[in-house]
Amino acid sequence: MKQIGVGLLGFGTVGAGVVEGLLSNRELLSQRLGVDIVLRKIADLDVTTDRGVEIPEGMLTTDAMSVIHDPEIQIIVELIGGTGIAKKFVLEAINSGKSVVTANKKLLAEYGGEIFGAAAEKQVDIYFGASVGGGIPIIRVLREGLSGNRIETIHGILNGTCNYILTRMEQEGLPFDEVLKAAQEAGYAEADPSLDIDGFDTAHKATILASLAYGFYVPLKSVEVEGIRNLSGIDVQYAAQFGYRIKLLATIKSGDGEVEVGVHPTLVPMNHMLASVNGVFNAAMIRGDLSGDTLYYGRGAGRAPTASTVIGDIGDIARNLTFGRPRYAQAVCTANTGKYQMRPAEKEVSRFYIRLMVSDRAGALATFTASLGRHGVSVLAATQKETISNVNNGFVPVVVLTHPATVEAVETALHEILVSGVVSEEPVKLRVL
Amino acid sequence: MKQIGVGLLGFGTVGAGVVEGLLSNRELLSQRLGVDIVLRKIADLDVTTDRGVEIPEGMLTTDAMSVIHDPEIQIIVELIGGTGIAKKFVLEAINSGKSVVTANKKLLAEYGGEIFGAAAEKQVDIYFGASVGGGIPIIRVLREGLSGNRIETIHGILNGTCNYILTRMEQEGLPFDEVLKAAQEAGYAEADPSLDIDGFDTAHKATILASLAYGFYVPLKSVEVEGIRNLSGIDVQYAAQFGYRIKLLATIKSGDGEVEVGVHPTLVPMNHMLASVNGVFNAAMIRGDLSGDTLYYGRGAGRAPTASTVIGDIGDIARNLTFGRPRYAQAVCTANTGKYQMRPAEKEVSRFYIRLMVSDRAGALATFTASLGRHGVSVLAATQKETISNVNNGFVPVVVLTHPATVEAVETALHEILVSGVVSEEPVKLRVL
Repeated sequence: MKQIGVGLLGFGTVGAGVVEGLLSNRELLSQRLGVDIVLRKIADLDVTTDRGVEIPEGMLTTDAMSVIHDPEIQIIVELIGGTGIAKKFVLEAINSGKSVVTANKKLLAEYGGEIFGAAAEKQVDIYFGASVGGGIPIIRVLREGLSGNRIETIHGILNGTCNYILTRMEQEGLPFDEVLKAAQEAGYAEADPSLDIDGFDTAHKATILASLAYGFYVPLKSVEVEGIRNLSGIDVQYAAQFGYRIKLLATIKSGDGEVEVGVHPTLVPMNHMLASVNGVFNAAMIRGDLSGDTLYYGRGAGRAPTASTVIGDIGDIARNLTFGRPRYAQAVCTANTGKYQMRPAEKEVSRFYIRLMVSDRAGALATFTASLGRHGVSVLAATQKETISNVNNGFVPVVVLTHPATVEAVETALHEILVSGVVSEEPVKLRVL
Repeated sequence: MKQIGVGLLGFGTVGAGVVEGLLSNRELLSQRLGVDIVLRKIADLDVTTDRGVEIPEGMLTTDAMSVIHDPEIQIIVELIGGTGIAKKFVLEAINSGKSVVTANKKLLAEYGGEIFGAAAEKQVDIYFGASVGGGIPIIRVLREGLSGNRIETIHGILNGTCNYILTRMEQEGLPFDEVLKAAQEAGYAEADPSLDIDGFDTAHKATILASLAYGFYVPLKSVEVEGIRNLSGIDVQYAAQFGYRIKLLATIKSGDGEVEVGVHPTLVPMNHMLASVNGVFNAAMIRGDLSGDTLYYGRGAGRAPTASTVIGDIGDIARNLTFGRPRYAQAVCTANTGKYQMRPAEKEVSRFYIRLMVSDRAGALATFTASLGRHGVSVLAATQKETISNVNNGFVPVVVLTHPATVEAVETALHEILVSGVVSEEPVKLRVL
C-alpha cells in the first residue's frame, strides 16, 4: 500500500487531537482509503509541554521549514492560526509543491485570494474543512455533495460561544453580561471575547461559505457584521412571546446576480430546525435549487471534532495523490463566472423585529406604523400592552414584526420616529428568519 | 476541458430530475468540477410519455445495452429500481468497465456483496449516495468526511412516509389507519404501503449505512425489523406525557467487536434534534469517536432532491476519471477487518417503554415491577393513574420506562406477566433512545 507522509505545523489543542487520531485510527484509515497515512514530523516552538499524546522520539521539532521541505512529506497541516507566520508557512508549502490542510478561517477570509491563487498556480490541493463548523463536514458537502445545485441560501449558527450565551440568556432569563462572565469562567469564552461576540469569527466563516457557494472570493469588508454584545434580555423575552428564538446567524443569499452576506442576531421560529440548536453546537441550513433545505449539525469547535474534519481532509488529499493528482480545481474561486456582485447592505430584504420605547400616549404606535407604511414597510404583528420590564418615565415598549422590507426603508422610518421625539432611546432592530 | 459521457437507465421521476439538473446546471458543474459532464443517452421502455423536460432528438432509446456499451459513455446511472433487470444492467456496466451511479437501495441491500465485488474486481467506481437519505449527503459524509472516525452509533429517520404518518398521529391525535389513508390520498404513501410502514425500506437503508460504517457487508436477514403498522395512538400520547416523540428509527451500534442493526418505533426525547424532524423529512445522527454527534437533515425522497445527490455522485466519478482513476477502494466492504460480527438480537441493550393493560387491583404494578427486577431490569418511571383511553373490563393501562436492559431480560419478564393472567392483552414494548 502506498504511503503518504504528513507534517504538522502547530502542536496545540487541535494539533494534539490530529496526532492522536492519526496514530490511533491509522489502520482503520488505511483500510477505508486504500492508502497508508503516516505522520512524519511535528513543528512547534514549544517542544516540552506534555500534550497528553505519546509521539515517537525525534518527531517533534522547532524547525517548521525542515518539516515543509521534508521530501517524505507530501501534506502539510497548518494548525498555528492567525495571519502571521501561518501565512508564510502555508505559502511556502504551496510553493514547494506540497498540498495543504488548514483550519485557519482568519487566514482564508483575509488572504484567501492570494492563497488559493498560489495553490491553483502550483496545482496543489488546499483543503480547509475545519475552518467552518469544526466537526461538521459543511464545506465538503457544499463543494461536493451539493455540487449540482445552485445555492439559494445558507443560514448558519457558526459560533459556539455566542450560541451558548444566547441559549442561557433565553433558558435562564439572564442578562448578557452575566452569562458572558459565566461562559468565560467555564472556558466557553475567551478573556477577550470580541472576536466571538462581536460576530467577526462568524463573518470569517461566512465569507468562506459564500466564496464556495458562488465561486468568487467574497471580501470580508463587504460583510455587514452585527454581534450580540448589545442584545437585551427584553428582546429575548419578546421574541419568545412571538414564538421565536434569537440566534447569531450568518446569512448568505443570492438573487438577480447579487450575493449578500451578513452576520446578525436573528429571530428564528421555534419550530425551525435551527431553533433547536442549543449550547455550543453549530449548524448550517443550506438550500439548493435541487436539494431543497438540508441541515448539518454538530460540534463547531473542540479538539476531537476539529481533528475529525482535519483528518477527513488529509484522507482526501492522500487519495487524490494515490489515485490521481491534486484537484486544485476544487478551491474557492474556481467557478467564478463574473456574474455575481455583492448586494449593497441597504438593499437587503428581510423581515424585521423592531422595539421602540415610546411615550405612553395615544397614537404613538399609530404614528410609528404610519411612518413604516409611508416607506412601504407593512406590519405583520405588533404588541404594546404586554410589558415585561418596568416602565420608565412614561415610556413603554412597543414591538413590531414587519413583512419583508429593505434595510433602507426600515432605517428611514426608524430615523423619522427617532427625530419625532416620541421615543426615548435608539430603536432596537433585529432580523427575522 | 475534458468531457465525461453519462448514460441514464430509467427515465422516471428521479431520472427526469437528473436530466433536468444535468442540462440546466451543466455550465455551473463544469466550473465547479473542472470537467464537462455530458448527458449522451437515456434508455427507457417508454419513449413517448412527456416527462416535462426537453431532451435532444435521438437521445432516448429503448435499448439499454446500446447505452451501456456506447464508447462515449463512461458513467452509467441506474434509476430503474428493483432487483431484476436493474441488477443485470448494473453488472453488465461494471463488467464493461463503466463506473456506476445507482439510487437502488434494495439492489445494494440484497446483492451488495456481488455488486461491490464485481466493481472491485473491474476497478470501477460505484456510487450510491441517493440510496439513503435522498437529497441528504449522508453516505458521502460517512465514507469521506468522517473517514477518520470509528463510528459508534447511527440513528436515522430514513423513511418519509412513516415520519409523515407518525407526525400527524402525534400532532392531530389521529389513529394510524386514518392517517395512512390520508397519506395514500395525498400521494405520500403507496397503495401497497408495506415496504414503508413495515420498516423494510428503512432496513434496506440501514444495512447500507452499517456496511459503510463497519466495513463489511451486513446481510439484510441479520436486521431485526419492526414497523409502525400496529402502533397505537395511546402509546403516542403516553410517550408525549413522558416527554418523548415516537419515530421509526434505524439504529446501528457497535461495541465489543459486535454490530447491531435494527429498525424499531422508538421514543425520542423531545429536546433531541431527531425529535424536531417532522413530516416527510429524513435525518441521521452519526456519532464518531472524534466528531461526537453530528446530524444531517433534509428531504429523503422526491425528484429534485434525489437528483441533487445523483448528480453529486456523477460529479465525483467524473473528477475521479479526469484527475486520476476510479477509487473503487471506497466501496462498501473495503475496510473489512474481520473483527466484527453481528450481535444476536436478544443480546441488544436498550431502554424500553412498556405498556400493559393490567387488572385494576392493588399489586398488579408491584407484581410486574418485581418480575422486571428479578430479571435485572430496573424501572426509571412508571404511571398507572393517568388513563387516556377508556378503561375496559377493569383493565387499566400501566406504563413503565426502564433503565437500559437486554431484550432477553425484558422479554422474559413480559412473558412471566403475560402467563400470570394479570394482563388482558399482549404487552406493548417500544425502545427508548
